[in-house]
Amino acid sequence: MSSVVIDAKVSPARHLDVLSKMEVSRLLDHSQGSVYRLYRNCSLAVLNYGDYSDNAKELIDRFENFDVKVISQERGIKLELNNAPASAFVDGKMIKGVNEHLFSVLRDVVYINDAIIDNPKFDLNDCDLTTDAVFHILRNADVLRPGLSPHLIVCWGGHSISRLEYDYTKEVGYELGLRELDICTGCGPGAMKGPMKGASVGHAKQRILNGQYLGITEPGIIAAESPNPIVNELVIMPDIEKRLEAFVRTGHGIVVFPGGVGTAEEILYILGILLHPDNAEIPFPLVFTAPASSKDYFAQIDEFIGATLGEKAQSLYEIVIEDPERVAQLMQDGMAEVRAFRKSHGDAYYFNWMLKIDSDFQRPFVPNHENMRNLQLNKDQESHALAADLRRMFSGIVAGNVKEEGLKAIEEHGNFEIQGDPDIMQRMDKMLASFVDQKRMKIAAEAYVPCYTLVK
Amino acid sequence: MSSVVIDAKVSPARHLDVLSKMEVSRLLDHSQGSVYRLYRNCSLAVLNYGDYSDNAKELIDRFENFDVKVISQERGIKLELNNAPASAFVDGKMIKGVNEHLFSVLRDVVYINDAIIDNPKFDLNDCDLTTDAVFHILRNADVLRPGLSPHLIVCWGGHSISRLEYDYTKEVGYELGLRELDICTGCGPGAMKGPMKGASVGHAKQRILNGQYLGITEPGIIAAESPNPIVNELVIMPDIEKRLEAFVRTGHGIVVFPGGVGTAEEILYILGILLHPDNAEIPFPLVFTAPASSKDYFAQIDEFIGATLGEKAQSLYEIVIEDPERVAQLMQDGMAEVRAFRKSHGDAYYFNWMLKIDSDFQRPFVPNHENMRNLQLNKDQESHALAADLRRMFSGIVAGNVKEEGLKAIEEHGNFEIQGDPDIMQRMDKMLASFVDQKRMKIAAEAYVPCYTLVK
Amino acid sequence: MSSVVIDAKVSPARHLDVLSKMEVSRLLDHSQGSVYRLYRNCSLAVLNYGDYSDNAKELIDRFENFDVKVISQERGIKLELNNAPASAFVDGKMIKGVNEHLFSVLRDVVYINDAIIDNPKFDLNDCDLTTDAVFHILRNADVLRPGLSPHLIVCWGGHSISRLEYDYTKEVGYELGLRELDICTGCGPGAMKGPMKGASVGHAKQRILNGQYLGITEPGIIAAESPNPIVNELVIMPDIEKRLEAFVRTGHGIVVFPGGVGTAEEILYILGILLHPDNAEIPFPLVFTAPASSKDYFAQIDEFIGATLGEKAQSLYEIVIEDPERVAQLMQDGMAEVRAFRKSHGDAYYFNWMLKIDSDFQRPFVPNHENMRNLQLNKDQESHALAADLRRMFSGIVAGNVKEEGLKAIEEHGNFEIQGDPDIMQRMDKMLASFVDQKRMKIAAEAYVPCYTLVK
Amino acid sequence: MSSVVIDAKVSPARHLDVLSKMEVSRLLDHSQGSVYRLYRNCSLAVLNYGDYSDNAKELIDRFENFDVKVISQERGIKLELNNAPASAFVDGKMIKGVNEHLFSVLRDVVYINDAIIDNPKFDLNDCDLTTDAVFHILRNADVLRPGLSPHLIVCWGGHSISRLEYDYTKEVGYELGLRELDICTGCGPGAMKGPMKGASVGHAKQRILNGQYLGITEPGIIAAESPNPIVNELVIMPDIEKRLEAFVRTGHGIVVFPGGVGTAEEILYILGILLHPDNAEIPFPLVFTAPASSKDYFAQIDEFIGATLGEKAQSLYEIVIEDPERVAQLMQDGMAEVRAFRKSHGDAYYFNWMLKIDSDFQRPFVPNHENMRNLQLNKDQESHALAADLRRMFSGIVAGNVKEEGLKAIEEHGNFEIQGDPDIMQRMDKMLASFVDQKRMKIAAEAYVPCYTLVK
Repeated sequence: MSSVVIDAKVSPARHLDVLSKMEVSRLLDHSQGSVYRLYRNCSLAVLNYGDYSDNAKELIDRFENFDVKVISQERGIKLELNNAPASAFVDGKMIKGVNEHLFSVLRDVVYINDAIIDNPKFDLNDCDLTTDAVFHILRNADVLRPGLSPHLIVCWGGHSISRLEYDYTKEVGYELGLRELDICTGCGPGAMKGPMKGASVGHAKQRILNGQYLGITEPGIIAAESPNPIVNELVIMPDIEKRLEAFVRTGHGIVVFPGGVGTAEEILYILGILLHPDNAEIPFPLVFTAPASSKDYFAQIDEFIGATLGEKAQSLYEIVIEDPERVAQLMQDGMAEVRAFRKSHGDAYYFNWMLKIDSDFQRPFVPNHENMRNLQLNKDQESHALAADLRRMFSGIVAGNVKEEGLKAIEEHGNFEIQGDPDIMQRMDKMLASFVDQKRMKIAAEAYVPCYTLVK
Repeated sequence: MSSVVIDAKVSPARHLDVLSKMEVSRLLDHSQGSVYRLYRNCSLAVLNYGDYSDNAKELIDRFENFDVKVISQERGIKLELNNAPASAFVDGKMIKGVNEHLFSVLRDVVYINDAIIDNPKFDLNDCDLTTDAVFHILRNADVLRPGLSPHLIVCWGGHSISRLEYDYTKEVGYELGLRELDICTGCGPGAMKGPMKGASVGHAKQRILNGQYLGITEPGIIAAESPNPIVNELVIMPDIEKRLEAFVRTGHGIVVFPGGVGTAEEILYILGILLHPDNAEIPFPLVFTAPASSKDYFAQIDEFIGATLGEKAQSLYEIVIEDPERVAQLMQDGMAEVRAFRKSHGDAYYFNWMLKIDSDFQRPFVPNHENMRNLQLNKDQESHALAADLRRMFSGIVAGNVKEEGLKAIEEHGNFEIQGDPDIMQRMDKMLASFVDQKRMKIAAEAYVPCYTLVK
Repeated sequence: MSSVVIDAKVSPARHLDVLSKMEVSRLLDHSQGSVYRLYRNCSLAVLNYGDYSDNAKELIDRFENFDVKVISQERGIKLELNNAPASAFVDGKMIKGVNEHLFSVLRDVVYINDAIIDNPKFDLNDCDLTTDAVFHILRNADVLRPGLSPHLIVCWGGHSISRLEYDYTKEVGYELGLRELDICTGCGPGAMKGPMKGASVGHAKQRILNGQYLGITEPGIIAAESPNPIVNELVIMPDIEKRLEAFVRTGHGIVVFPGGVGTAEEILYILGILLHPDNAEIPFPLVFTAPASSKDYFAQIDEFIGATLGEKAQSLYEIVIEDPERVAQLMQDGMAEVRAFRKSHGDAYYFNWMLKIDSDFQRPFVPNHENMRNLQLNKDQESHALAADLRRMFSGIVAGNVKEEGLKAIEEHGNFEIQGDPDIMQRMDKMLASFVDQKRMKIAAEAYVPCYTLVK
Repeated sequence: MSSVVIDAKVSPARHLDVLSKMEVSRLLDHSQGSVYRLYRNCSLAVLNYGDYSDNAKELIDRFENFDVKVISQERGIKLELNNAPASAFVDGKMIKGVNEHLFSVLRDVVYINDAIIDNPKFDLNDCDLTTDAVFHILRNADVLRPGLSPHLIVCWGGHSISRLEYDYTKEVGYELGLRELDICTGCGPGAMKGPMKGASVGHAKQRILNGQYLGITEPGIIAAESPNPIVNELVIMPDIEKRLEAFVRTGHGIVVFPGGVGTAEEILYILGILLHPDNAEIPFPLVFTAPASSKDYFAQIDEFIGATLGEKAQSLYEIVIEDPERVAQLMQDGMAEVRAFRKSHGDAYYFNWMLKIDSDFQRPFVPNHENMRNLQLNKDQESHALAADLRRMFSGIVAGNVKEEGLKAIEEHGNFEIQGDPDIMQRMDKMLASFVDQKRMKIAAEAYVPCYTLVK
């Protein structure tokens, strides 16, 4: 693949970003190398939108000469780019949506680095203070819309899905948009992009000019799933767990489309939270939906959930096959319930403070070989605890397949070794095998190589 | 086809329309039956969007019980609808885009009826006063944007084109939108809709919230080509000729996609005007474009133009095959030329006052049997005069195929009889035959029946 | 007084005005001299704001070389001014408020000339069609705000009042503004300006950015009472009667401050209308208010009304002395009544269609010597008819004191001769004498010379 | 004075404030009593606007039962007020401007408490980090307007000035507003309010809807100089020194009106900074202006400056007597210089990063008896260092006259003892005596009692 590059100075397209001298100097301080490298890589990812690849290393290698500098000027901050991907420009002018993303990266990296990290008020070992940090990052990114009633539908699903599945996500998005609902996804192609494209047509017909297309990502995933410019609000969370917490605290309902192992991970995350006894009363609209030809995906997941987490877990979601209008109506009905509940409990529409998220779901999980071997995958525990470890296991598998560090670890130490209840492990193995059959485990066409081995 | 209907009272979604008592009473005065019937039928057409059919009578018959009343209320005007097409509503609420169209119809029918017709200041037999009337209708519809530089690209082409051609119009629209250009079409499906959809994605990526998707229609065509709700500014001109004048005076450049006989008519219209000696200096970007598989369409038209109107006519346009980016760049370059010319001549960016439009192109042409027989289709005249009569001939053929009156006339009196220079007639016949072969002459799948006969 | 002048080209400050070629050429057609002269004089008046004088001729003489041309340019219309009053400029740049007024004059003169005059749809001998014309002019000027509940308080009173009275009008305006009410006056200084200034402070404290400061004037009065730039919506009505009709149909309540004979005329106008039997049910908040030191003014008027029009007329208003807060609260309560009434009757909030205005109050009254002699000033008629002729008499007296034509007529033919019921005439004479004593009859300090003689 | 009180729940009038649970609980944590007390007292001060008194204790005593609670609700934060001053309400509804101020207090107290205090990134003993903290507070308050060219004129002067002086500040503000300049003051009456009122009329005439009326205050002064609701952006800085730094870093020029000892303090502050050698090149428009009748005030100050700081200091300002237009033109010319300088040096228009502010001017000065006695008031030092100590001396005198702590200290320990160069001390004493004569030292009419004694 050719990698045409461009040099450019860009000013912020929207409101002008204002940074202090200290913020800029701390960001660019190369002695604090890791912050700058993270900033540069995230910037590169948003510039390279549309060129999706599951292999982040590839991207980084291809644009190894890319460089970004922050320069001060009389009206604020400007970015000086060298060897930037040309695809972000039209006739030499940066696309405004990409421009916004570039400044969102700057905003979030600076804020997390300056206001969160090392600030004693956000001790990230503390549950409540972690939630507070998530809130602060989202508020600083100006994505909370306190004036609005519940309206934001999180869409999850694979970034690498078939054309037919993709078109289905657009139709669902269109029906959501027609009902004046907004979309939040994890950025990237496939089920992350389709609902936003569909919703934008629905919004256009309803003359909604300020529709929210919120993309929430994190440094480890952004290179592989860079935000499409339709995303008009982008947030870079510090890690996977805070990104997931951001989804469930800002979103008012979740629609899950077919995906691969990452989608399964997200399903286990939300079920693990909703199964917590403290959350029993909190309404949380949750729908799994697919076109008719892909109905097996959710049949398998439903079966796996039934067998591991039980009927109570199954009662938390509804599966809708080939009926975009019904999905949208279920979400709209759900919004009314969420609204009534929050109003009666004085909980904010724009942030689900009441939802209990156990530290099991908050603490970053480093999917190294040791941690993977220590997972508790058996039924001798409460279902939300089991869900947590199932989720971690899937998280490790995602990492081993698409993330820089994970790929490297597998390269060095061989497959992860996973142990657990034989029934659970057998069902999981069967489900994963079927994902492979359905080509749901990797973008590139090469034969899939599993990154784990089941052991006793 | 089932025709689900709905009763509703609707208030204007955007700014509230304000009408005087006299305007309302003159509109609803059933003794002045024709005005009310025209108003009602146009309203029905915009409500029935998406349900395209070349047969306007069918639509009118299907919703024969449809009725619309204007009622006064404390905050302005409300419409009371009976037996309206259900497709205009989502969960019982009218789609805002349709709502706007409905009030646009009201606005334009009232204005034309009240301020133009019978007003001695707009004598429609006078060239300049006709142009003044066109200007007044557009200004009243608030579609002129005096603050902007030249930006509005008129897209012409068939409403009944192949999926592949349609996707191509979307791609062209996308590239235009990325370059911050706006779109004007004649409303309806196919080449009227694709460029707008594409441009809306381009605009979204460029964060353009106020992109203009201008639809210009007229009562005789609106039922067959009802405006898609993406059209965010709709104008109902009084007749075909004023609609065409509106296109060329507000648009800053024209892109023509493949179509049928109607598209050929539009090409002859613009060439006839640009060939007028008074217009020799005026820049007017004009591109014919098609995907590779449809390049024959323009090859035939180009050949026909060369043979009838000559090389000078051929020099007025550029043909671009399968290159959306180049189309957009040509238009962008053209905008700069238009801008420079208007600036240096003090002509308005928002209305092409300088363009000479001969009365030949302004006077409504009633395509009855007598008028069709009187056309002068020979080369013993200036090329712009020949273009005028060629255009009328095509106009008659369009009428005989899709318009209520035309269909009726053919039903009653048989085919039109057309005479002319044998060479011209032969070439035209060949071109029409090829359109039929390419299935470009009718929406419905039935065998095409020509509505004219070539006579001596 | 020095008359510094300036030459300038000005573009519209707000939205760009768009005029057709025909509109411009008809306006500037010097063969149709009277239209151009009227346009030029009104333009001069708004440019000369702040320099108030009751003698319009003086103004016209002082700037006899003033000239205004309309020129076309690529973004719309520009005005070329020669020998314009320098007071409209700050450091050579025209004040934006004055700029807006200048283009409002253009807009209204063009519209009245083009769309109203000679248009068979506005036969100004017909009551309803006259009201329709008033509506059309106001709608074209975009001063109707259909989205709002009743909110617009008309303030009447003298343009030449004492400092203390002026400060009182500011305080009343402040209290109205604090209650989010808007102000409409007849433009000019004194009681026309004070309430707007006061309201603007009230609005600022309530963070109201779009407060309406509507000035309604007409060509005969604008030179003497040119609009202060705080007026943010200006309408030039064709004559006194249509101006008065505009006040009572757009305003939702009226506050009258002390003034002179013109104020008395306005009081008789509104009482004459409200006394009409058809209007008996229509709520119309009406308050006369003055600081304590000026309470005699309304005591005399109240006595005169009691003696001529009777108790029923007196019951239509409330007199409030030295209590701005109470005035504002009465108006606020009145708005609720107006709102309820209009809602229940389906009458528009933004235009009082239901109010019956007799042709007696609509027909322009030419205050020449013959017409003045023919007035019926006796009690052998219904009170609203008597009010009409009393109003005309005062109108004549205003003309004879401040208007160009009136001054000229008196110069040529001597005083008006007025006859009537001796008791009425005696009371009126007494009232006028007291106005003279209070120096309420003329701006300039010269001794007042009455312009009428009472005859048998 | 009667103190009518009211209970109310208020939601934010503008955009909804969003606070985290932790922020609210830390604010209301009564164990951290001082934060809550400061919050409550500042809230009380903005509610009690218009009721100016130099005695803060009086206010606090009068509303000792006032209480404010922050409560969470579905759309954000609401405040519950008990025993609030009724003057903040109109007919029971809180004035929106006051509402905004109330939420500005909440915003700033929370931010300073949460993000600045105890955050290792803002070590307030470090010059640059202190400036960074000032920047962060202003940015968080959203008062920096990076899109604009230099435009913000700081107006200093007394809060207790004569009617004539007050009217003069309005006239100057009017001329500034006509030239589209914005106003920043320290809140309160007199010279803090007049320029804003004047500018608001100028802005209205220029149709400027988003004029900036920035008030910068701090907890120690807000009770005595509560912000008038015309202030549309309010910032509470942590202390006097950061407030002064905020003035000189955000303002683009300074106009000083007559005042008392506090005004003299401000003059010494800005001169001390501008005299620093590092600032020699930086343009900073500075004008002292007064009506003719008050010209002595600046004559005395000018003389004092000449005698103590020398001619170089005198060259930094221009004195303009009775000429508002010239003041505005000087500022407008100055804006062009500031703009050119910042542009050429890449310094931000919205924050004067380049200005060197010595730690002498940054460190809070506690005006206790010991510190006052230690001041170095002699000429054996650089002029900017002398200016620093002269400023501190005046600061102590202001504290001893109007601030809670200062008043208490004087009550307990007697007058401050000040020593210094006899010539300086003599000149100062003479100047202070003349301020007393001109009644510039105290609001209340009681005889002025000096709070210091000159000692050897």
